[in-house]
Amino acid sequence: MIRFDSDYTEGAHPRVLQRLAEANAVQTPGYGEDPFCREAAEKIRGLCAAPEAAVHFLVGGTQANRTVIAHLLRPHQGVVAADTGHIAVHETGAIENSGHKVLTVPGCEGKLAAAAVEALCRAHYGDASFEHTVQPGMVYISDPTELGTTYSLRELEELYAVCRKYSLPLYVDGARLGCAFAAEGYGFAELARVCDAFTIGGTKLGALFGEAVVFTDAALAKDFRYTIKQNGGMLVKGRLLGLQYLALLEDGLYMDIARKEVALALRLRDALAERGWEFLISSPTNQQFPILPDAVLEKLREDFAFSTWQKMDDGMTAVRFCTGWAAEEEQIDALLAAIPFRG
Amino acid sequence: MIRFDSDYTEGAHPRVLQRLAEANAVQTPGYGEDPFCREAAEKIRGLCAAPEAAVHFLVGGTQANRTVIAHLLRPHQGVVAADTGHIAVHETGAIENSGHKVLTVPGCEGKLAAAAVEALCRAHYGDASFEHTVQPGMVYISDPTELGTTYSLRELEELYAVCRKYSLPLYVDGARLGCAFAAEGYGFAELARVCDAFTIGGTKLGALFGEAVVFTDAALAKDFRYTIKQNGGMLVKGRLLGLQYLALLEDGLYMDIARKEVALALRLRDALAERGWEFLISSPTNQQFPILPDAVLEKLREDFAFSTWQKMDDGMTAVRFCTGWAAEEEQIDALLAAIPFRG
Amino acid sequence: MIRFDSDYTEGAHPRVLQRLAEANAVQTPGYGEDPFCREAAEKIRGLCAAPEAAVHFLVGGTQANRTVIAHLLRPHQGVVAADTGHIAVHETGAIENSGHKVLTVPGCEGKLAAAAVEALCRAHYGDASFEHTVQPGMVYISDPTELGTTYSLRELEELYAVCRKYSLPLYVDGARLGCAFAAEGYGFAELARVCDAFTIGGTKLGALFGEAVVFTDAALAKDFRYTIKQNGGMLVKGRLLGLQYLALLEDGLYMDIARKEVALALRLRDALAERGWEFLISSPTNQQFPILPDAVLEKLREDFAFSTWQKMDDGMTAVRFCTGWAAEEEQIDALLAAIPFRG
Amino acid sequence: MIRFDSDYTEGAHPRVLQRLAEANAVQTPGYGEDPFCREAAEKIRGLCAAPEAAVHFLVGGTQANRTVIAHLLRPHQGVVAADTGHIAVHETGAIENSGHKVLTVPGCEGKLAAAAVEALCRAHYGDASFEHTVQPGMVYISDPTELGTTYSLRELEELYAVCRKYSLPLYVDGARLGCAFAAEGYGFAELARVCDAFTIGGTKLGALFGEAVVFTDAALAKDFRYTIKQNGGMLVKGRLLGLQYLALLEDGLYMDIARKEVALALRLRDALAERGWEFLISSPTNQQFPILPDAVLEKLREDFAFSTWQKMDDGMTAVRFCTGWAAEEEQIDALLAAIPFRG
Repeated sequence: MIRFDSDYTEGAHPRVLQRLAEANAVQTPGYGEDPFCREAAEKIRGLCAAPEAAVHFLVGGTQANRTVIAHLLRPHQGVVAADTGHIAVHETGAIENSGHKVLTVPGCEGKLAAAAVEALCRAHYGDASFEHTVQPGMVYISDPTELGTTYSLRELEELYAVCRKYSLPLYVDGARLGCAFAAEGYGFAELARVCDAFTIGGTKLGALFGEAVVFTDAALAKDFRYTIKQNGGMLVKGRLLGLQYLALLEDGLYMDIARKEVALALRLRDALAERGWEFLISSPTNQQFPILPDAVLEKLREDFAFSTWQKMDDGMTAVRFCTGWAAEEEQIDALLAAIPFRG
Repeated sequence: MIRFDSDYTEGAHPRVLQRLAEANAVQTPGYGEDPFCREAAEKIRGLCAAPEAAVHFLVGGTQANRTVIAHLLRPHQGVVAADTGHIAVHETGAIENSGHKVLTVPGCEGKLAAAAVEALCRAHYGDASFEHTVQPGMVYISDPTELGTTYSLRELEELYAVCRKYSLPLYVDGARLGCAFAAEGYGFAELARVCDAFTIGGTKLGALFGEAVVFTDAALAKDFRYTIKQNGGMLVKGRLLGLQYLALLEDGLYMDIARKEVALALRLRDALAERGWEFLISSPTNQQFPILPDAVLEKLREDFAFSTWQKMDDGMTAVRFCTGWAAEEEQIDALLAAIPFRG
Repeated sequence: MIRFDSDYTEGAHPRVLQRLAEANAVQTPGYGEDPFCREAAEKIRGLCAAPEAAVHFLVGGTQANRTVIAHLLRPHQGVVAADTGHIAVHETGAIENSGHKVLTVPGCEGKLAAAAVEALCRAHYGDASFEHTVQPGMVYISDPTELGTTYSLRELEELYAVCRKYSLPLYVDGARLGCAFAAEGYGFAELARVCDAFTIGGTKLGALFGEAVVFTDAALAKDFRYTIKQNGGMLVKGRLLGLQYLALLEDGLYMDIARKEVALALRLRDALAERGWEFLISSPTNQQFPILPDAVLEKLREDFAFSTWQKMDDGMTAVRFCTGWAAEEEQIDALLAAIPFRG
Repeated sequence: MIRFDSDYTEGAHPRVLQRLAEANAVQTPGYGEDPFCREAAEKIRGLCAAPEAAVHFLVGGTQANRTVIAHLLRPHQGVVAADTGHIAVHETGAIENSGHKVLTVPGCEGKLAAAAVEALCRAHYGDASFEHTVQPGMVYISDPTELGTTYSLRELEELYAVCRKYSLPLYVDGARLGCAFAAEGYGFAELARVCDAFTIGGTKLGALFGEAVVFTDAALAKDFRYTIKQNGGMLVKGRLLGLQYLALLEDGLYMDIARKEVALALRLRDALAERGWEFLISSPTNQQFPILPDAVLEKLREDFAFSTWQKMDDGMTAVRFCTGWAAEEEQIDALLAAIPFRG
């Protein structure tokens, strides 16, 4: 069985594990107040060309989203997101549980358009009974999105312009951020200029776990450690996060992993396209959504794990193949060997 | 600098780290639905002699407390705890943030007495305007407590009897559970019979992180995975938790670590007592609270890290020394060498 | 200026006011534990042919919705509603503020179809990662809906059958309940058999304020007074609610008011239809949504208050006219005199 | 049966009821956006000599406390209160339900001392792990307190000075505010200068219901109407609140009622003292807490309603007698006739 059902099927990249092992006996204070976290934060500020940025390390993505959003909103405010956004769909109502509505607008291939945010704000303030509806308080996007698509730098700039117009902090969920960088060509410093906060996801790019939260506007991070603790996200041995990010950000490992994940996924994509198969969506990153016949899929399941995404007409199903840090050429070869040309 | 400020100053016990490294390349599904978690849960059910128990793995203690309590209470209910309880003091209001009051009663050396719970319930239902006050909905204790003290099995039985009388689930926060076992002589199976849910803390007993939550009454755990996810506690690579508990529970490692932590702490305690020093509290576990002169402490701080606990009269201060899995005889020797006899 | 912008533009029906005045000097206990509330509850149980029903009195609709929903759901559950439902749109996120997602499905002329609830439940439990999404925990409908439409008894029965299949309490927001009864011909007793809880709205049918909450399954109301108090809904002089419901339910006043409101609105509807005007929706109750030319509306605004509902094409706008307990034939005459025939 | 169990045993003062009746047929918009509310707010600003103050009208006290506190705090903050404070004891955890801890300190005869707030803040920020505890975010007091005691203007000034030092908004729950004014001699304008927000309670001083919330710093009230709506506190026929406050504030009715309530209560107090009875607390307002023999109380209960407050030693019990707007000399006479001299 070869698993393509997610990009978190193995442990950590060997260099990450190595780093944890090397520092294992070193004594440090807990709760992220150790030299490793400090050094990693400093490194991230450098990469972002944002010397004043506030950097915090959390364990998981839902936790990071919940904590950042709870921290930024006032009680009567909601967070604007695409209807396919992770916070709107796959976090068991974590945002609502913290008291806030997710104000969804139809996404465009998983992305939130600047015009959609503008329209929502206009509609809100143009409504005579606006105080009877939830006030838009911030904007959430994921890059890459849950459908593997990515924002161009221009799209981000447009979105940010609208956000600033309506005083809405823009928060980017970067659970697979490196893959967006690999696909779009921009990087930390460019991103840091077009949003107020973002995460650098580690879990899906070689770490055991970890989300670095970067507030490019440090004022927004005031008292953020209280909020982390309150939301159960303050790792006792916080150093584990600092150490992992130090490993990932050393010698470009993070982007090397991202580029590899994307390259393998695109090889799969291109090969399937050549064989005549269509895709649910055109993704430039490490998640691919081909539409395949149920008969083919049934056989494929004997040897490969992948996710069923959406039933289509005529006995076809869109599925998801995902490549993680440990994916290898040979695994892609094996998968391709098991998928025929379209008849 | 030798650190005694907490029992989480190093990484993981080598056997735990080893186990993570060995399984690093193995592919599994995420979110705790992997064979390692299943095997670890089965092992715990066995140790608890509770074949029907529900076992879940979370990352941290505040997270576990928050998630269990949010899961068990109805909105108008609160959780009864000693005023020194971790949930009442040191979790930045995580319980209140999930909507519930912590109903504190004065603890007795950190412990909650059965009689105190009985009195609180009587007072609640005896009040004509009881519906204007928070209904007691469950009971929280920590064993060992935040002050290092432990419950005898008899105390637990008495507490549980009152809890059952008022239909209050009894939940035991076992962040340092092994140390209570080491001190009191009871174990998993005995504990499982006198409460409804408890945690087996890993972080402070040799793991990188991890709290195993055991619901001895599995009905209480219905839908618990939803609640875990909603509270941001579902680790994507959940296997990391299963693997660590497998290592800790193999060949008695967990209790070996606990016994070592306690033994070193008691050696420190006894040596200080011999030298004439008094203690804030009599603790049979790995946290010791001697009262020392400020002048001694000032000098001690040059070479040792420890926690200031409480200013006493006459230039004396109660401090906390804590021993973790990696503490060594030589470190205790060095510490003792630096503390004089009482003049 | 004649106001048709809502059905709450005046105070209370004279008989309601009279009742409050008569009992003004009578001394009673507070918080709804007075003889008037008891008598009114008993009267409602009688009308509902539900001798075991639990009846509570709250001040307002958002408060009632929030309190009932918070009381019935567990934390990981959401409430299913039509996307036009009041709780989904016009309560400033009160439901989310209490921790729960509103699981919206597209409504059909404001109504929630049984098939839509069935489909949502199937999709939820058919999803491999269902624990990552909010569990449907109850169903909310309003009758009449926010668009003035009403459920037939058969529609309610079908909805209730699906709800029971999935163990979802069905809750009916009856802010304008009498108008649904007037339009559909069923009454309290029929409704009580096809749902688990409903409100009898007073504010829009002759009271100063008030929502009677009826739990036909009294077990669901266990500890409900705690929840009322916690949500700020326990009126100190609760007798004001009991007294108003006694007045409304005496000699059929409640239904007399409802029938009058509906009759006047239908007179308006039919007259406008005769004049060639179309409607946004076909409503059999006291809210009417004609589509009129902007030029006509501009002139109309000089003498009449009404709500702008939706901009249509070609200089037309759908507006809402609403008739309350105090509306009079002469007011409808005046309004009709100001609206021309379609050219 | 004559009721002294609370100050809300009757309806409204006749002039309040009269005002509601007079305006009953007048048409207005809903939700507090009517001319009566505007006029009443203006009147309050005038009385407070605070032309920029924001004034809102809510129905009840728990609702007002919950809404104001939820509005002012950030998620990681708590509200400081005396341990006898209404929000700490008698609101079924409404504050915790909105996500916030009530940080209690021992009250002094029901009052919160400036020094106690100072000490709590120092302790918080002086704690090395302060981010693991709830941050003090505002201060709540009630004046008169739940025990009938009142703050002197000097005590308020001292408290406010500490609050400003730590940037904590000071909020005064004035459920019986007029009685504090009557006892202490200060008034709206003096109070408005020594706090950031306060309520003018109507329910216990002649209204059917109603709490006027005054934000002397209007910036704190930004978006408050959203918060009111979200917390279920926006009365549909909001005019009822405006009308009642207009009646209460006309020709000094509010203070006339307050002075009468206090005068009758003090007559009772002085007569009981003359007869040799002692009091649980020395109260200068309309709540009195004499300590009487159980035998006397048992007989008294046949003809009078009052509240049992606290069992004392030796067959004595502290009880509460409360005088409301409708209390009369004759009722006090009757009560005194039934209580003997101390033997």
